[in-house]
Amino acid sequence: MTTKPNTKKGLLIVNTGDGKGKTTAALGMALRAAGHGLKVCFIQFIKGSWKYGELEAVKRFADLIEFHVMGRGFTWKSEDLEKDIAAARTAWVFAQEAMVGKCYDLMVLDEFTYLLSYGMLDGEPVLAFLANRPDGMHVVITGRGAPQALLDAADLVTEMRVVKHPHESGIKAQKGVEF
Amino acid sequence: MTTKPNTKKGLLIVNTGDGKGKTTAALGMALRAAGHGLKVCFIQFIKGSWKYGELEAVKRFADLIEFHVMGRGFTWKSEDLEKDIAAARTAWVFAQEAMVGKCYDLMVLDEFTYLLSYGMLDGEPVLAFLANRPDGMHVVITGRGAPQALLDAADLVTEMRVVKHPHESGIKAQKGVEF
Repeated sequence: MTTKPNTKKGLLIVNTGDGKGKTTAALGMALRAAGHGLKVCFIQFIKGSWKYGELEAVKRFADLIEFHVMGRGFTWKSEDLEKDIAAARTAWVFAQEAMVGKCYDLMVLDEFTYLLSYGMLDGEPVLAFLANRPDGMHVVITGRGAPQALLDAADLVTEMRVVKHPHESGIKAQKGVEF
Repeated sequence: MTTKPNTKKGLLIVNTGDGKGKTTAALGMALRAAGHGLKVCFIQFIKGSWKYGELEAVKRFADLIEFHVMGRGFTWKSEDLEKDIAAARTAWVFAQEAMVGKCYDLMVLDEFTYLLSYGMLDGEPVLAFLANRPDGMHVVITGRGAPQALLDAADLVTEMRVVKHPHESGIKAQKGVEF
């Protein structure tokens, strides 16, 4: 697999960093792609990270955006690590099946980095699978602490960096703006 | 105007930096807010920066998201600086009128930083206006090079930082993914 200059190809895009906007930008990309009539599959790997606002928004694109919630609400303080690992693997199998189905132009693996950084999935086969995904399929992966090997494999990496956060000044997170 | 801890208030949010995702995250926020049934006014200050995908996406939210394109396609190499300044001022007057109308929960001033950083608008009255906007109204401002005074005034600032960009490897910008 060689990359010629000016070749069109499916991009592997990573939104990482501790700041806001990783998932929100992925949502914006999904909606923009749907605006072009492209088919999108959005898989949320951390149960509960999406709230009412996002869910209602994607409903208006039900013809173009499929939305799936996976996982069992990983808390990272589970008393049953084996069950969490099994859930992570099941979720990744689901995502792989969706990708080889080949009918999506854009896959979003939301909050997926945690499955790698917490060692619930082995990085090497994941990266090998991503490298061999269907031609032209764009993949967006979000989450803090993306492993270096994922950054190396990615075509586009953006770090969302916190410059200033309102919780510092005692302001509550607010409906419609932060969730 | 004092801020008590845990007070709910309209946030001034700035997405800046040289990376991707500033406008896309603002689009995601607009759609999420609309998902909550909140009313949004999205003003694009740089003509032509939005393409077909975004425009089609917001059409599905025509009941909740108003979208306006201002400016005359600022190129920053205009041969008629006076006309550009006049257009910037007209756009800002339009935005102010929209804000004092008080019927929006969220205002997005997309690519607005350029009007400040290129000196087409005076920063001080702009910041004074923003500080005195209707209670509870959230404002999102996007664009590179946000002036320090704007960052100081903001409640939430995120810098989108380029870690890796596909154009470095000679890959063209692609429909549905980058525009």
